[in-house]
Amino acid sequence: MLRLSSARLSVSRSIETLMPAPSASGQPPLPEAEFIAGFHAIGEERYHHKHPFHLLMHEGKLTRGQLQAWALNRYYYQSRIPIKDAAILARTEDAAFRMAWRKRIIDHDGDGTKPGGIEKWLRLVEATGLQREQAEKGGGILPATRYAVQAYVDFVSTRTHLEAVASSLTEMFSKKLITLRVDRLKEHYPWLTPGLEYFTGRMTQAPEDSDFALAYVVKHAHTRAQQDATHNALRAKCDILWAQLDALHHAYVTPAQPPPGAFIPLTAP
Amino acid sequence: MLRLSSARLSVSRSIETLMPAPSASGQPPLPEAEFIAGFHAIGEERYHHKHPFHLLMHEGKLTRGQLQAWALNRYYYQSRIPIKDAAILARTEDAAFRMAWRKRIIDHDGDGTKPGGIEKWLRLVEATGLQREQAEKGGGILPATRYAVQAYVDFVSTRTHLEAVASSLTEMFSKKLITLRVDRLKEHYPWLTPGLEYFTGRMTQAPEDSDFALAYVVKHAHTRAQQDATHNALRAKCDILWAQLDALHHAYVTPAQPPPGAFIPLTAP
Repeated sequence: MLRLSSARLSVSRSIETLMPAPSASGQPPLPEAEFIAGFHAIGEERYHHKHPFHLLMHEGKLTRGQLQAWALNRYYYQSRIPIKDAAILARTEDAAFRMAWRKRIIDHDGDGTKPGGIEKWLRLVEATGLQREQAEKGGGILPATRYAVQAYVDFVSTRTHLEAVASSLTEMFSKKLITLRVDRLKEHYPWLTPGLEYFTGRMTQAPEDSDFALAYVVKHAHTRAQQDATHNALRAKCDILWAQLDALHHAYVTPAQPPPGAFIPLTAP
Repeated sequence: MLRLSSARLSVSRSIETLMPAPSASGQPPLPEAEFIAGFHAIGEERYHHKHPFHLLMHEGKLTRGQLQAWALNRYYYQSRIPIKDAAILARTEDAAFRMAWRKRIIDHDGDGTKPGGIEKWLRLVEATGLQREQAEKGGGILPATRYAVQAYVDFVSTRTHLEAVASSLTEMFSKKLITLRVDRLKEHYPWLTPGLEYFTGRMTQAPEDSDFALAYVVKHAHTRAQQDATHNALRAKCDILWAQLDALHHAYVTPAQPPPGAFIPLTAP
């Protein structure tokens, strides 16, 4: 099935290079600039830079316990990113794509000499005052975190390869958010400073990754239906990020009701 | 894979009928009464009868808009129950099991003459003042609802058949909750009364179903490891129910922040 899907994309590409194909709805493809602007509009509306949990974080209004809960739950997401990227690699016969995309797995898992993103996130967990083993074992992670992360792995495993690639495009917006975050975390929670190496690494990795992914999506989304599907893939990914923060906010900020079995900070929030 | 798994269970059953097998941890199986008491203890701790959203509902403190959001999101869960049960049917070669379990699909999808549970839930949606089409199309359902429901379908599709059956055991506790709910809904929200047929049907269906499932689990969980796995399956299912109410509570009660794209009640909550 995966090979057929990939082959079908290649065939449609060679036909559609000759003439823009109308979508099933009969609408012509969006011009490139308008198509790209669509991603930016979706990010402005739905990316988690606007989530109340992040706003509180950047205003210095979170407690150490709330930041512990964030680091612990977000670690689970980070730890599944290479699995997500391997699922995307597994779906294409395009070796040039795989050679470009595999960088993401190395960035997260490390190259055996320098620490990767997962190790760096464990250092952030430790900077909050938790043991790295708690994150590695996953004890106390919110069930909603697991469900949202699995939804991401499922998405890239079951939708078209093009949609899977497009779902990564939240990285178009992450450098700006991370730059602000590092600044505010150092200001408001100076004790977190030793744990911020993950973010400084992502400041160069994320734009490289999103530049490649956006160029790929622009090149391969030929019909209006394909363009719409990639816009929807970005919406779906934004929902997945947002839902994780909703669950954190509910459990640890307002009304601060952790579900049974969830992590409880030692210090009162 | 599924057949192998089923066959393996059959083989181990025939061996273990002869003598109680120790689990990998070396612990002997729990006596039947203690094993069953474990399910009750888990339900008391984790079943969603204790969730703050339900407490508010039963105290008459929810608005019509909040009940609309509940009916809309819970419809999505209801609509996936026959899919979940079909996945369980698909995993066993035991025809007697399938003959007993298929009742659940008929209960939800209907028998072609009497309305099934899904149709009855649509009438509840209508009693809240929403159009049934909104539920059927799924517009505005919380992403977290979809993720939790998918986690349930995934659970019964990927864990052992025994764990899949055990995950249904929340039905051991549902009659008591539903009896209270119908009473309180009629008292506090009399305009909902025409939509309560789902619950009155479940008052007899749920105990029948849980009696069968509990007997099946008691008969087939031979080792302590299998017993532990079925207890954990019930915990996992309780988490799935709880997470759906957490998401509703967050979006529509406190802090009442629906994620982008989610249903917004016409009347202020």
